[in-house]
Parts: sequence; structure tokens; C-alpha cells
Amino acid sequence: MTAFHIYDTTLRDGSQQEGLSLSVQDKLRVARLLDELGVTYIEGGWPGAIPRDTEFFQRAERELRLRHARLAAFGATRRADTAVEDDEQVQALLDSGAGTITIVAKSDIRHVTDALRTTPEENLAMVTDTVGHLREAGREVFVDAEHFFDGFDCDPDYATRVVAAALRAGAAVVVLCDTNGGMLPHRVTEIHAELRERLEADGIRDPQLGAHMHNDTGCAIANSLELVRGGAMHVQGCVNGYGERTGNADLIPVVANLQLKMGRDIVPAAALEDATRIAHAIGEIANMPTQPRAPYTGSSAFAHKAGLHASAIRVDPDLYQHIDPRHIGNDMRMIISDMAGRASIELKGRELGFDLAGSKDLLARLARTVKQREAAGYSYEAADASFAMLLMDEMRGAPSYAQVESWRATSHQFRDGSVESEATVKLKGDGRFGREVTIAEGNGPVHALDSALRTALSRSYPQVLTFELQDFKVRILDSEVGASAITRVLVTTAIPGETFTTVGVGPNMIEASWEALFDAYNYGLYRLELGSI
Amino acid sequence: MTAFHIYDTTLRDGSQQEGLSLSVQDKLRVARLLDELGVTYIEGGWPGAIPRDTEFFQRAERELRLRHARLAAFGATRRADTAVEDDEQVQALLDSGAGTITIVAKSDIRHVTDALRTTPEENLAMVTDTVGHLREAGREVFVDAEHFFDGFDCDPDYATRVVAAALRAGAAVVVLCDTNGGMLPHRVTEIHAELRERLEADGIRDPQLGAHMHNDTGCAIANSLELVRGGAMHVQGCVNGYGERTGNADLIPVVANLQLKMGRDIVPAAALEDATRIAHAIGEIANMPTQPRAPYTGSSAFAHKAGLHASAIRVDPDLYQHIDPRHIGNDMRMIISDMAGRASIELKGRELGFDLAGSKDLLARLARTVKQREAAGYSYEAADASFAMLLMDEMRGAPSYAQVESWRATSHQFRDGSVESEATVKLKGDGRFGREVTIAEGNGPVHALDSALRTALSRSYPQVLTFELQDFKVRILDSEVGASAITRVLVTTAIPGETFTTVGVGPNMIEASWEALFDAYNYGLYRLELGSI
Repeated sequence: MTAFHIYDTTLRDGSQQEGLSLSVQDKLRVARLLDELGVTYIEGGWPGAIPRDTEFFQRAERELRLRHARLAAFGATRRADTAVEDDEQVQALLDSGAGTITIVAKSDIRHVTDALRTTPEENLAMVTDTVGHLREAGREVFVDAEHFFDGFDCDPDYATRVVAAALRAGAAVVVLCDTNGGMLPHRVTEIHAELRERLEADGIRDPQLGAHMHNDTGCAIANSLELVRGGAMHVQGCVNGYGERTGNADLIPVVANLQLKMGRDIVPAAALEDATRIAHAIGEIANMPTQPRAPYTGSSAFAHKAGLHASAIRVDPDLYQHIDPRHIGNDMRMIISDMAGRASIELKGRELGFDLAGSKDLLARLARTVKQREAAGYSYEAADASFAMLLMDEMRGAPSYAQVESWRATSHQFRDGSVESEATVKLKGDGRFGREVTIAEGNGPVHALDSALRTALSRSYPQVLTFELQDFKVRILDSEVGASAITRVLVTTAIPGETFTTVGVGPNMIEASWEALFDAYNYGLYRLELGSI
Repeated sequence: MTAFHIYDTTLRDGSQQEGLSLSVQDKLRVARLLDELGVTYIEGGWPGAIPRDTEFFQRAERELRLRHARLAAFGATRRADTAVEDDEQVQALLDSGAGTITIVAKSDIRHVTDALRTTPEENLAMVTDTVGHLREAGREVFVDAEHFFDGFDCDPDYATRVVAAALRAGAAVVVLCDTNGGMLPHRVTEIHAELRERLEADGIRDPQLGAHMHNDTGCAIANSLELVRGGAMHVQGCVNGYGERTGNADLIPVVANLQLKMGRDIVPAAALEDATRIAHAIGEIANMPTQPRAPYTGSSAFAHKAGLHASAIRVDPDLYQHIDPRHIGNDMRMIISDMAGRASIELKGRELGFDLAGSKDLLARLARTVKQREAAGYSYEAADASFAMLLMDEMRGAPSYAQVESWRATSHQFRDGSVESEATVKLKGDGRFGREVTIAEGNGPVHALDSALRTALSRSYPQVLTFELQDFKVRILDSEVGASAITRVLVTTAIPGETFTTVGVGPNMIEASWEALFDAYNYGLYRLELGSI
């Protein structure tokens, strides 16, 4: 009995999503979240082919400390008519240092002849050689049988031979891919069963097979489940269903269906209880939010419009929800009640080190404030530091290390076409230090403001010089009104031993950035002070 | 052999979608579009219970001229312990004038006793009486068996009795509802088969059954198809998958799968070729756009990013798409990204109206330029207008309507905490017009720059006053270096008859915004000039 694999390909196939582009830093952050989710494998990219992915594997080796997951590198079989030892692309996969390598192989005869323009036999040799070569180098090898289902529909004999060749050469898993995403569940089930019969007739028993499904018919999740029901022990997908065209199978609903409805024990229950948070955090990093209607993880997934059901739900919520949303870290939400809000605020407070369990009034006040501020455009999903500041503000006053008198930021394009930004910051003098007036240049107005503020604070708080602005995200909300819309800015700051995020909101992008920056310096100074007590 | 029903419930169950609210006028417009789509039934709402729906049925009778579809009114069985003739809600259904009435009935014993708080026998009598009463009044009656699958799981006997009672009383169809949306395809199939066996044993042959599925497991489409495969002849859903929580089964993919993949001839082929337009039009009316990743109808559904595939797509598009997108009125679309090679640039050029097939050198030059600019942070994926400008620049020089002398944008927080932004723009005088110097205030520096630029251009090109800045997106790239990182700005602009997107990139967010804005005005003026020739 082999262990079941959850194989995440958000960082590779998910990046084919239109409009999605992850930096190396983003990829490392996503990988850490996937590890928390309890996936078995994280496909990191295609080292050698994509420079960013090569760098990812280099940095992953030094910087990632994965607890559960193993990293897999993606690549292709050797080129046609080339010795595998001479193939640079294959060598780059080995050079990535990944213990697991997944190679894509053509299993549809039409793609072999028309796209790859080689012979059926050479394609089989490419599979056998590449798997063998990587196995000899001590790597675990998975083979993605590209266009498998369409290929089987067209020529079941050849599609089966490709799968058999990969298994015989030592592939630990052959993954059956619905690359064009056009399959329906009943056909997936039939093809899978027929493949197993053919492999058995060919002397291959208990083949280790996997599922890689796209959502072009809207059936990616169902197709994945059907393959698992038919014996597959490896399932691929992307968080938030990212991927080319209509996306890959949405990984969290697949896992939730398997674990909560089909009795498979594949991730720790505690990890699944973090799944909604993880999906949303990855959505923030990708700057492509979890869709409200996403199964299990969407903000509407357990939301009930008030009316018909409200009183019955109060009697027995299970009459109107298919699972307890806590299993997936989501909340039942009545549009008219703030009950769920208080519960999650209590949980979040606990996460941040504040025990609010006994403080009913405070919780109610906080729930109201959060609701008001989120309606105004704030989002505390990712901005833990701003939420902590809000919480302290309601409890005993938020920490404050300086007071602003005024600031100004200017960008200027001169006659020669060059552009300069500069900012002035004035801080009020108070008991702790004298009035500060600083000026700084920057690559843009926010950078200039950050430099001027840092200099102003550093005269009294030299520790701010160790703060590092790590990430700066801008999202325009309510975008139908164009440049006059509300802007949300998220700033991620690293201080010694800790990284946190603050949020600023307003119609003016510069003002929102200032709010997030100023909060970041205040919170950072507070955390360092706490640590030094 | 009964005809197959496509039963749309966008106007009733779809309206349970969080954030969706349709006026009577909206509902009439949606109904006309549904009729064009070729659905068999349009469920208009719950007359009597919801005033807006009562009005809809009144106006529909006078104003709608449906070609194919029939209107259905939704309601409930009579109340417990009330004669059906005395039930005002049932009377309102008759008063609506709808020829078809769909009533919801409890089929889960727990809901009968715990939510409805009546006896199992009284619930059965409610079904029998209400169906009989409506039939006597000459109406076609459908019964939605609410919570049928969960009910069958809990007490198959009772769930079957409710279905049998409805059929015996004269219901034309009993619709099996997965009201909480928690079902998986294999279980739906098993329950459906067992229900049919039990009904047969009870003397009911060839029962007319329907499917009403919610997407809480991500399987609404698959579940609908499985029921049809098992013999159901009626399928319910909502356009764009609207509905409470995770939504109802997305109707167009259900129909497309049935017709294009399962060989059912249920709507005219010409109507299906309008499906994408209809989905988007309904999204506009509902102010809740079709999701880009929506199967069949999404803007990304047939979009290709990978350069790997482009050369093969040129040879045979069907190798990389599961259907010909024209069958559903969608388009194959090449996304220009740094993964793209010459083949995809040629395809993209053709889309934009430029034939580059013979121009090998130009294609090579463009591929190089795109790659360089994307490496610098540009993204032509969404920015078709900027790509067209680039293309024209390489071909014969991009259109240019004004030259910049200088600009300046300032944001200032005053001592009282208020923030102001203002911008000045200076355009060079040339043969076409004199030097322009304008100043404008704005909600932020970009808004101020846009206002100042628009004013400056409008003196010579008054048509820019019709341009509308529709969307403004900011993305910080390579975010590890924080506020000094590269910024990408995407600006979407509407001009009469057209909407397009431009991109600007640079370390300075304001400069990048200026670039995208300035390109937008240039491209918009060029398009209007083209149109007026």
C-alpha cells in the first residue's frame, strides 16, 4: 500500500494562469504555505527553461525549511534524436538538486507525429531513456502523460504503450493528464478502467497512476475524484484552481472532498482547518484573490442570505450546510448577524497572543469596527500587524512612537525626460525628541517617503535602520470608477526575527501608502520593545 | 419520449447569490436573453412572496414576447394544516398567470420534523393536495424535491414516498435537488438508480425526473450530467453559475457538455453559438461579470499562454483545444508573454488586423522586443493596445498626437491631516497646436495627472472628453526590493465603440502610470481617426 500523494502544481502549471506572475520571493512564500497545508509534493517550476525557476530551486535549497512537503522539478523528456546525456534541459533538471523530477511525455500519437514531429518508437525511447537516466542519478521520477485521455480516445494502444514504457523504466507514478480539459467523468472512468486492464494484460500489476485535470468542461474536481475512486494514488491540482484557460483542478476542494466525504485520511485534520486561510493568503501573494464562490474556501461558500432558512439554521445549522465549515477553516456567515465575526476575531486574537475569550463587549466592539473598516476597503486577512494595532487600540491604545506634522511627495518629469521623486517629512517634537524635518529622494514617491520617514525616526530610534521593506502591494478596489477609486496598500516589513504586514486604504494611493508605512514603523518598534523587556 | 427540458433559474435561485440584485426591468432583459439561448423554461421568481416577482409576472405577460421559452412561477406547497384552497401563497401562484408552476416540497424527513415542524403524513398530503389543485386549474406542475439526496441518505423510504406522491398527483417532473450542494457524482448516480428501482417496485414506470444541483463540492456540473446519463430529462441551472453560497450548476457548460460532448440535440446550434455573448450580457445586467476562467464562456477559456504550444497551434488548433470555440461563440486567443515566440506574435497580429505572415524579419524583431520589454517588466497579456502600438512602431512608427515637455505631480498632507494631490502638465507646441500648460487637482497623483493631461489635449482634440478611464491596476514586480521595485500599471480605457488596455512600467509608479495614460490617449485618438476615415 503506497501512501497517497497530493501534488501541488500552483508554482508551475498554475503560473500559466492569465495575469498571474510570481516573483522568486512570492514562490518561496507560496511554498511555505503549501507546506503548512500538508501537501506531499510541491512542483516548483521548470529549472533550466525558465531563469526564475532555476533561481527558485537554488534559493529553495538554502532558504526553505519544509516540514512535510518534498520539492519536485518539472521538465520534459530528452529531445528527439539526442542522447539523454547530451540533453541540456535534462541536465538542468538534475542540476536543480530536486529529489523528485516530473517529466512530461507525449502520449497522444497525433502530438507525437504532428507537434513533436518524430516517430512513435523514438517517442517511446525518449520516455525510457529519460526516466532511466534520472533514476540512475538517484532521483524519484514521475511522468506526466500529456494529452493521455484524448490520446487514448484516438489510439488506446499507443497511449497504453507510453504509460507502460514509463512504468517499466522505473517511474514511481505515471500521471494521466487531461491536458485540453475536455473530459467528462464517465469517460475518464471508462478510460482509466480500460487502461488498467490493458496494463494488466501486458503484465503490469498495480500500476501507480495519478490524475492531472483541467477544468474546461467544469468537471476537473469530479474527474480527479473519479480517478481516485478507480485506484489512482496521486492527484495534482492548484490552489484557487489557478492554471491556463479555465484552470487546473482546484486542489483544496479535491482534498476536502477526499478527506471529508470519501474517508481518505490524507492531510492532518489541523492542516485542513487552515486551508481557507492558506488559500486566501496565496491569493493575496498572487494578487488574484480566492473567488467568493469557490467551493469550501470562498467567502460566500458558507454564507446564507437571510430569510427562509434563518430560524432553522439557528436550530440546527447542519440542516443547511453540507459540512461543518470549521473543518476547512471557513465560517458560516449569516448576512444579518455578526456571530461568526466575533468567533474569528477571537481566534485571530489568540493567534496574535491576546486572550479575548472572556471579553464579550470588546469582541462585539471589535467585530463592529472590523466590519466598518472592511466595508471601507481595509482587509485584515493578510495584514496581521494592522489588526493587532486595531486590537490594542480598542484594548488600551495602540503604541505610538512619533507624531506626524505634515509630509509632501512630488514626482517631476523634466524637459529632458528624466523623472525624479522627492519627499519631505515633518515629525512633531514631543517629550521624547525634538521636531524633525527631513527630505529624501527615491525611485518613486513612496520610496522617497519611506526614506525620509526612516531618517526622521532614526535620530531617536536607530533600530529602524534594521527594518527592511520587503513587499509593497497596491490593489485598486471598486475599479469601475478608474483612477478616482479606493486604493488598498499592503506593506510587508522585516525586522530582526519577524516579518509582518500592514494595510493602508484611501482614495489617494500616496496617502494609503503612508498609512501602511507609518503603521509598519510603529508596529516594528513596538515588537522590538516587547522583545527587549 | 418526452422532450428534454433546460430549466433556467437565474431569476429565482440565482438571485440568492451574495451581492446580486435584479430590478424588474433587469429581469425582463435577462429573460429575453435566456429565450435567445434557447432554454425551455425560465423560472421568473416567487410571485406573491416577493413583490418584485409579482410585478415581473404582470409585466412579462404584457411585455415579453418569448419565442422558445415558457415562463415558470416558483412557490411552495400549501402550509401545514390548511386547506389548499385557503392558502394565499398557492393562490398567488395561480394569479401569476404562469402556465407552469414549480413547487418546492420537503423530501428530507429531518426537515419535515425539525424545520417544517409537521408530521411525515401531513407533508405528503401537502404535496398531493397542492399538485392536484394546480393541475385542476390546468397548470403544468413541477415539484422540486428539496434536500432530496441528503434525505435519501438518511431515510430512503420517506424520500421515495415524497417523489411518488408528487408523480401520482400529476407532477410532470419531479426535480431531485441537492439543496446543500454536498453530493459527489458517484453518490448522485447510486441514489438516482436506487430511487428508480424503488419507484418501479412501487408501480411507477419511466418517472420523469430532473436535476437541481449546487456547487459546494465543485461538482454541480458533473452531478447534473450524471443524472442525465441516468435518465433525467430536465436539468436546472443558472447562467454564470450564480446562486447562493458557491452557486447553482452553471447552465451554459451543462448544456454545452450535453450537446457538444454527449450528443444530445437540445438547443439550436445557432443559439449555442450565441452563448458566450449571452453569458457576458447577463453578467453586465447583473453587474457581476462572467469569470474569466468560466468553462466555455470565460474570456480565458480558450486563451493560450505557453510558447511551447504556439507553433503547434498554428499547425492544428484542435490539438490544443477541447472544442472549436466558435460552437459556443467564444474565441481562441493568444496571450503574448515572454513565453511567446514568433508564431504566437503572428497569431496575435492577425487578431489585431495586421497580416505579418510574410514578414519573417519583422516577426523576429518583434519577438526580441517583446521578450526584452517583458523582461523589463512590461506585460502584453492584457495590454492589447500597447502591443498594437509596439507593432506599429516596428512597422511604420506609432501614431503620436502630442509631445510632452514636462509634468509634475504632488501629494501633500497638511498639518490638519488633510491630503491634497495636484498635477501640472506641459505639452510642447507643434504644427498642430500651441504649447499647453494645465493644472488639475485629483483624488491622488494619477487622477490629477489624468485630469491635467485630458484638459491639455482637449483644446485640440475635444474627442478625448468622451474617453473614460475604466480600470486602473497597479502591480509591484520583483517585490523583494520593496518600494524601490519595478511597478507595472495597466490602464483600461473606453472610447465610443471600443475598450482597450495600455501598460506602463518603471521604478517610479507615477512615471509608469503616466506612460500608460499617455499611450491610452494616443491609441484612443488613433482608433477614432481610423474609424472616421
